[in-house]
Amino acid sequence: MKRFFVFLGCFAVFTAAFAQQALGQRPKVQSPVVHDDGTVTFNFYDPTAQQVSVTGDFEEIHPSTLPMTRQENGVWTVTTRPLNAELYSYSLNVDGQRVIDPSNSYVNRDISTLSNIFIVTKNSGDKGHLYQVNDVPHGTLSRVWYNSPTLGKQRRMTVYLPAAYDGTRRFPVLYLLHGHGGDETAWSDLGRASQIMDNLIAGGKAVPMIVVMPNGNPTCDAAPGWWHEGMYTPDGNAFNERGAKATMEESFMDIVNYIDSHYRTDARREARAVAGLSMGGGHTFGIARLYPESFDYYGLMSAAARLRPGDAVFDSQMARLFASKPKLYWIAIGKEDFLMNMNVELRKYLDNNRFSYEYYENDGGHLWRNWRIYLTLFAQRLFQDL
Amino acid sequence: MKRFFVFLGCFAVFTAAFAQQALGQRPKVQSPVVHDDGTVTFNFYDPTAQQVSVTGDFEEIHPSTLPMTRQENGVWTVTTRPLNAELYSYSLNVDGQRVIDPSNSYVNRDISTLSNIFIVTKNSGDKGHLYQVNDVPHGTLSRVWYNSPTLGKQRRMTVYLPAAYDGTRRFPVLYLLHGHGGDETAWSDLGRASQIMDNLIAGGKAVPMIVVMPNGNPTCDAAPGWWHEGMYTPDGNAFNERGAKATMEESFMDIVNYIDSHYRTDARREARAVAGLSMGGGHTFGIARLYPESFDYYGLMSAAARLRPGDAVFDSQMARLFASKPKLYWIAIGKEDFLMNMNVELRKYLDNNRFSYEYYENDGGHLWRNWRIYLTLFAQRLFQDL
Repeated sequence: MKRFFVFLGCFAVFTAAFAQQALGQRPKVQSPVVHDDGTVTFNFYDPTAQQVSVTGDFEEIHPSTLPMTRQENGVWTVTTRPLNAELYSYSLNVDGQRVIDPSNSYVNRDISTLSNIFIVTKNSGDKGHLYQVNDVPHGTLSRVWYNSPTLGKQRRMTVYLPAAYDGTRRFPVLYLLHGHGGDETAWSDLGRASQIMDNLIAGGKAVPMIVVMPNGNPTCDAAPGWWHEGMYTPDGNAFNERGAKATMEESFMDIVNYIDSHYRTDARREARAVAGLSMGGGHTFGIARLYPESFDYYGLMSAAARLRPGDAVFDSQMARLFASKPKLYWIAIGKEDFLMNMNVELRKYLDNNRFSYEYYENDGGHLWRNWRIYLTLFAQRLFQDL
Repeated sequence: MKRFFVFLGCFAVFTAAFAQQALGQRPKVQSPVVHDDGTVTFNFYDPTAQQVSVTGDFEEIHPSTLPMTRQENGVWTVTTRPLNAELYSYSLNVDGQRVIDPSNSYVNRDISTLSNIFIVTKNSGDKGHLYQVNDVPHGTLSRVWYNSPTLGKQRRMTVYLPAAYDGTRRFPVLYLLHGHGGDETAWSDLGRASQIMDNLIAGGKAVPMIVVMPNGNPTCDAAPGWWHEGMYTPDGNAFNERGAKATMEESFMDIVNYIDSHYRTDARREARAVAGLSMGGGHTFGIARLYPESFDYYGLMSAAARLRPGDAVFDSQMARLFASKPKLYWIAIGKEDFLMNMNVELRKYLDNNRFSYEYYENDGGHLWRNWRIYLTLFAQRLFQDL
């Protein structure tokens, strides 16, 4: 076997040389470096730059910018204060230009913008641990095309099957909806849904469940680049409901029917949950009205939930929802969220109608940081008595 | 419904403002713009930059660099000559720094390097059409964790199920192996395997098949960031076979056994193919020797296929392979590939042993451009008489 390794070594050098040749060169700099105390060092080599800084969500609510200092070797550097356990996003700014950190190949796309990410795990709180990939059983993550008769086309969704899924036992299902500008990749990529579910389930904190993450834009078949519109510039406003045969809510049971007919699901009401963030919270609000006998758990996260009291259809739908007495109607929002007023109105309306719901309020705004927390909390409440 | 749209419009503005706030600002510039004649314009806004260029694989073999010209509005621009239909990779260079084009959110990762991509479809050849997502039935792409008893751990692989897969009919299987520095995401991301298979199958050029893309590094559980080693800097040399309980070839039937027991496969020899590029071509060379009765089609693409004539074990394994008379033993390599000599030696050896194989040689080197072509050609040869 020894000769084989020697050969492999040479081969690696050749391959690396080719990769460099094909893709351009850059000096070897490690960035970011996450230290044990939660401080994080960013490094960026650019001997000719005049000004370099890093901008990230290092504070709870608003992005913060840290100027970087040029060292003699041309590497710009800065170290943060100790950060709490969390998944962070950032980018660099080099002489006025926003750039991705070339030393960090981990990026997330939010609408059309790429940002680097890293995770702090060792400091206060368990969020970093929940969001990272640990040595636990992992579920399967699939991009699945399904037929939507109501919308008259094939569409793409993301399906998480828990590690215990083996085609025999039946599992409950959480339908998890993204916000405006998002798509069927948002919860799995920005929301770390598969990592959160793997870790909650492995820790015995959530029951094994299927999580279905559809595309909530009825005029889109799939995420940008994954349907026949090609590699267009993602734009939350490019594909809205205008021109679609039906709304997300009206076409929603196509998704449920597909899942029930293609996976081993527990299709009882008490084994079905639906939750969503922002626009997806609005969808959840609508789905709860349209199909109150089909779901027992609702999660409205930073929800764009529009009340229409006095509208006869709306009032009768809400009355039907109230009468259905779901196990959990959960409303979560951050103190700084720009949809706070809408949610205050929603709670007033529900209070006036003596409808039983739960409310969770935390710091922060209309950001993925909060939606990951909400998924973590909501998932632990589901299906515990099945 | 009208009021709902007005609301959504306002909501979009709020959301966009928040996204900008969270992720930093950049001017709106469209780049790249692929014109109908195959020319491509790159645009990049940086009023203070001194020198901007674009480097991409616009020529067949070596990357080429095009200087960009500063316009009065601070946008640097350049337009290529007409390019052939193809998937291209590129990056920008701004005052000596390699940067990702901020107007293009489509990127591929090759080992640790991100590059932007775009597709030219309308010019000569059908490659652009084959690599893009068309309005055809789409297969399911899954990241699946399986148990490898031989390696003593759970590992991740990518599984493509053809659109026709419905859990009843059985399908043949192509096992598709990546090269050094790659992982279970390489063929689906850099190789456009799901798009190629969707398009070949929809066009009646390939029979519907399952394509299994495992991780060929026995010491890795999964691609960087997708296992408990965390978000390390991807490095082709960081995880090799040293310390693993077995080689890729020795542990390979764990994958086949998992696939056969979890999917509706046609498990006959004539319904099984294995192919790989570079190191994966070496794995294919080894798998053909170890399990000649299990596969009927082999594809060695730019293969790192190491001969050991005179070694008793090697000679007897090869004799067994020769005796098994596979339907297709296909060797493909580019004229400029640095492994050409190794493949010349391989063909000499096979000729001397009067073993029937097919050989395909084209322009270019050790690059994904060629491996996509090889997959396209090889897939059309498989399982046609089942």
